[in-house]
Amino acid sequence: MAHPQVTFRNTAFTGESILASRRNRVASTTIKTQLDQLKTTGRYSCFELKWHPTYDDTSMWPVPKHLFWDSDIAKWIEGACYFLESHYDKEIDDAVQYMVRTIRGAQQEDGYLNIHYTVVDPGGRWSNLRDMHELYNCGHLIEAALAHKNYYKNDLLLEPIVKYVGLIAKTFGPEDGKLHGYPGHPEIEMALLRLYIETDNKEAYKLARYFIEERGNPTGQNGKLYYDWEAEQRKESPWQRPNHYKEARAHWYNQAHAPILKQQTIEGHSVRALYLLTAVADLLCIEKTKSFQMDKFSEWLTALHRLWDNMVDKKMYVTGGVGAIHQWEGFGIDYFLPQSTDEGGCYSETCASIAVMFLAERMLKIDLNGRYGDIMDLCLYNNVMTAMSLDGKSFTYVNQLGSSESDKNGREDWFWCACCPPNFSRLFGSLGGYLWHFGERDGEAYVNVHLYTSAKLAFETDQGPIELEQSSNWPWDGTVSFKLHNPKQVNTAIKLRIPGWANGDFTLDPPLSTTDKPTSVTNGYLTLPAEYLSSNAEFTLVISGVSTRWLEAHPYTNQNVVYLARGPIIYCAEDAHNPWENGHFRNTVVKPGQPIREEVKTWEPTGETYIALHTKAWTRSLGTWDKENHGTDPTREIGALDLSDERDIVFVPYYFRANSGGKGHMRVGMIKG
Amino acid sequence: MAHPQVTFRNTAFTGESILASRRNRVASTTIKTQLDQLKTTGRYSCFELKWHPTYDDTSMWPVPKHLFWDSDIAKWIEGACYFLESHYDKEIDDAVQYMVRTIRGAQQEDGYLNIHYTVVDPGGRWSNLRDMHELYNCGHLIEAALAHKNYYKNDLLLEPIVKYVGLIAKTFGPEDGKLHGYPGHPEIEMALLRLYIETDNKEAYKLARYFIEERGNPTGQNGKLYYDWEAEQRKESPWQRPNHYKEARAHWYNQAHAPILKQQTIEGHSVRALYLLTAVADLLCIEKTKSFQMDKFSEWLTALHRLWDNMVDKKMYVTGGVGAIHQWEGFGIDYFLPQSTDEGGCYSETCASIAVMFLAERMLKIDLNGRYGDIMDLCLYNNVMTAMSLDGKSFTYVNQLGSSESDKNGREDWFWCACCPPNFSRLFGSLGGYLWHFGERDGEAYVNVHLYTSAKLAFETDQGPIELEQSSNWPWDGTVSFKLHNPKQVNTAIKLRIPGWANGDFTLDPPLSTTDKPTSVTNGYLTLPAEYLSSNAEFTLVISGVSTRWLEAHPYTNQNVVYLARGPIIYCAEDAHNPWENGHFRNTVVKPGQPIREEVKTWEPTGETYIALHTKAWTRSLGTWDKENHGTDPTREIGALDLSDERDIVFVPYYFRANSGGKGHMRVGMIKG
Repeated sequence: MAHPQVTFRNTAFTGESILASRRNRVASTTIKTQLDQLKTTGRYSCFELKWHPTYDDTSMWPVPKHLFWDSDIAKWIEGACYFLESHYDKEIDDAVQYMVRTIRGAQQEDGYLNIHYTVVDPGGRWSNLRDMHELYNCGHLIEAALAHKNYYKNDLLLEPIVKYVGLIAKTFGPEDGKLHGYPGHPEIEMALLRLYIETDNKEAYKLARYFIEERGNPTGQNGKLYYDWEAEQRKESPWQRPNHYKEARAHWYNQAHAPILKQQTIEGHSVRALYLLTAVADLLCIEKTKSFQMDKFSEWLTALHRLWDNMVDKKMYVTGGVGAIHQWEGFGIDYFLPQSTDEGGCYSETCASIAVMFLAERMLKIDLNGRYGDIMDLCLYNNVMTAMSLDGKSFTYVNQLGSSESDKNGREDWFWCACCPPNFSRLFGSLGGYLWHFGERDGEAYVNVHLYTSAKLAFETDQGPIELEQSSNWPWDGTVSFKLHNPKQVNTAIKLRIPGWANGDFTLDPPLSTTDKPTSVTNGYLTLPAEYLSSNAEFTLVISGVSTRWLEAHPYTNQNVVYLARGPIIYCAEDAHNPWENGHFRNTVVKPGQPIREEVKTWEPTGETYIALHTKAWTRSLGTWDKENHGTDPTREIGALDLSDERDIVFVPYYFRANSGGKGHMRVGMIKG
Repeated sequence: MAHPQVTFRNTAFTGESILASRRNRVASTTIKTQLDQLKTTGRYSCFELKWHPTYDDTSMWPVPKHLFWDSDIAKWIEGACYFLESHYDKEIDDAVQYMVRTIRGAQQEDGYLNIHYTVVDPGGRWSNLRDMHELYNCGHLIEAALAHKNYYKNDLLLEPIVKYVGLIAKTFGPEDGKLHGYPGHPEIEMALLRLYIETDNKEAYKLARYFIEERGNPTGQNGKLYYDWEAEQRKESPWQRPNHYKEARAHWYNQAHAPILKQQTIEGHSVRALYLLTAVADLLCIEKTKSFQMDKFSEWLTALHRLWDNMVDKKMYVTGGVGAIHQWEGFGIDYFLPQSTDEGGCYSETCASIAVMFLAERMLKIDLNGRYGDIMDLCLYNNVMTAMSLDGKSFTYVNQLGSSESDKNGREDWFWCACCPPNFSRLFGSLGGYLWHFGERDGEAYVNVHLYTSAKLAFETDQGPIELEQSSNWPWDGTVSFKLHNPKQVNTAIKLRIPGWANGDFTLDPPLSTTDKPTSVTNGYLTLPAEYLSSNAEFTLVISGVSTRWLEAHPYTNQNVVYLARGPIIYCAEDAHNPWENGHFRNTVVKPGQPIREEVKTWEPTGETYIALHTKAWTRSLGTWDKENHGTDPTREIGALDLSDERDIVFVPYYFRANSGGKGHMRVGMIKG
């Protein structure tokens, strides 16, 4: 098995898709503006281990503002290395090499490598795994080192990082005398498993598995839950807790309230939960190929399915966003999915949907099923892609479905906790790896196509090379043309994802033989067997279902609104295109029966095109509710919806929001009239 | 001015109203079962200052479970004293006298009087006003002492309490050397103002005013907010906080985030907020009659109106419940009013609606307006009356509008934090004081009638006695007959509240003269002038609007449901009367256009009657949402409401819920089909 961070090298984006456009923008602009941010904020040189004024800031407890700087550097290096091959840039190359030198120089004699606990609090190493991100930072350094090695073909970064992993493996584990802890913010688990897969580092595998299996053990350390034990060591009262801890011992915040196998619902900080589950999925993928006779394989798989289902069925927004609750940046109760702050919440962090894509990609390896592919698609084109401006210079962290006076629609150049912008870069750097899974199995080559765009895959099998090219104007058009180049006539099977929203409405040309009808889609994938491909090197899939549709969320979400979608794209309305709007579209009513007109539009600065959707809208009158002191009673007798101001409304893709100025009013779900 | 706790003595309940029935039940049963609870739990003898095993319980921080015991005793004494006159009982009399002896015996030499800080933590007095309820307990002791004095006509309880108040006045105040603090849980402010009004204790007035005016001063104590300063004295980190503190320094929990005059919205723990505002209203009432030239009178009045309006317009349930959020037992953001735990919250504490009645009663003195009377009526007949079972033996603390698997509809015999049951008793003990305001002003007697029932008011004016009797089958019938007995022909005006829900649909017989049309209702009250009354000693008000109506809440509440009401009564459906229900009525649909049949029913154990309402209901099919793993997408294409299982549904008054067994499924707001 190989991860997208490696396999993306087998894919070249071709043509003018929005994915290619976004990738090129990251390469040409974003990597550099993010480097500028690293420099301006002090991160760039932080591994030189000098004091920085930010280190004096103690306004937050227990997390100081520089706590993630190691990871900010690491994630930028990782993203930069993914782009250097296809988009070489001397400035970027130099910056990577400088950073790698400083990281090497910052390593302590025993292998330890962390800015905060070297410069600011040298005595405090491993004293607060719950909050302090040491292991998280190390995880990102591992991922940077692997990306670095793959591009530079040297061990300059990997060598110190492997030494650091060795120290961590000596520090944590089941043996007496080792700490029985695990990271407050999972990440290192995924990274260690990649380190194992790419370098056969068995210590890394063992450590990742330990962190995963030990997590949430109620009696793991001296008879106590690790985080309770370590808080006692710090002489902290159980009632002393970070602001994101809702209550004392709310260890569901970081998925340590119970062993993972016993967790019934997905809880807490959404990025932590999803990084953790991605690592669990990786463990199972490894198990499927290597067969280490992992204990309870099927129980782990059941837990993974259970938590995925809970997330998608009950805790995911229509945009692929997850996490309704600001306080813990994470999951609320089932079906609690308000659109905006003034309705009770909506967080939908960019990194969380990126992490849903990580997890979906792994799930597709374990269990090929369109439900994972559809969600990966949904997240990518909506909650993830909305996170970067079209000019590649500004970002979102939170992605609400509705704006409000306190949280207007907009973007920022950077964040003090800057996880999202470089996460976007490294995802787009390795994006090719998410389009398809490919390889050789039982003497047959296979390609499972998950995402449609214009791109070319090339890989080697024992019997010869395979190339598969797809061309399309996806997501605007459902026609995808494929060309298979298979000079050695290797037995090859291709599976094509048929999105759930297409409702089975697709054609294949040339058609499959009558005994293999295209209607015989299994788990959301259409199989093109070797016999078909051997006589049809070129074929076209037409997903006719790419048309506008009105969606609704589960009735228990109490949203009472409809959402406009077209193919994988979820739409929103902004005041920038609807300048009559002054109230965050909170009283805007649409009628699904009304005609919708499609308009192909061009975003002038880059020439990128998109489809805008026009329909009619009305304003709901609040009547007597609309004045202060509206009555003597918190209710009134029921009345019909009172609509006025019929007018045109323009919807644009959610990813397109906040690129056109305006007052910051935006909404995805509109009241159904 | 006089408070209901005093004026209730001028009212006798007559006939068989549900108010009289409930009062009699409290007198005959509740006072005794609550005494039993006090005995079984250890509260009864706690002022003997012996150690009790409960004191060893340190599972909660910082509030130990016995912290409110002083107030539990005090509230029981207060309620008992209200009932002793009309419902004498030797056992109760003896118990009151025993408790008073032990309270006297528990007082320390300097006047201090608190169980926890005498028995459990003798060194800790006044070290944690934020959390530890010392002043709250004292407030309830003051109210008990006033009730005791009014019944027993001696100072056995008042004397030690006044001494304690003296100690508190020496401890807190603006002067150098005094602490500049105020109670974490307001209550003593109301109590002190009653002490002033009833005994002219000017120290009490000054202290109450200080607590109110100092509250939320950001630099009050050594340049800091008092609660921050005292936490520093306790050497507590700002990050160490009780579970109900959402985040560090969340002093909005107890309304100390800003001076009251600057508070724009009603926030935090709802009982605290409402006790505090009741005291503010008392201050303004006192000012209106005594004119102490209080600073900023009009600003205080504006603040009071602003916070009342915010509560009623944006934060009140249809039942008169307030407080959506369990964590801090209090207010959420504007319009956030889910019906049940599984929809995101609903608290509606019994005490909070009792406190709304306290506040409304004061507001009616400052500013006679039906908006206060209507809300007092709404709270009494719904969120308050639902808190006690018809047999008088069990209670609710939280009053949700919808049950769920984790929070079923039901009652408890008692609570470890037992604020609600004795609050119910003392409210019903003094209930006569809420029916009407009366007195003499500018040589004219007046009675402002706020609540309808069957009762007789008698009071003296300088010119002679006045008696006013009202007879009705309220709330089931809108006909209220009045008899005025005015032997000295004192000039008398009567104002009658015309409920907002009646929509002006009422008649008066005999009618007013054509120049004083009954339609000339001012601020929700119909004035019967002296001329009318001098020739019409008997008259009848018929509020024709007592019929069923379907209500809706503000659209921003996103509830998408309708509520069934009749007169002041809000209805609910329970599985006990609708045994087909198995899902907490979460998918039950009603159609407001359907006929509603009224049925007069009798609750067999007491013969009390009520009106049940019958209509049709359907079940909303969840279709594909209904299965786990329902799809590949968190949405689906919109479809029409899919209804099945047409059947009869019976609604009963919300106050009647949980008296008939069943599985604990109940809901107020039903989906509108």
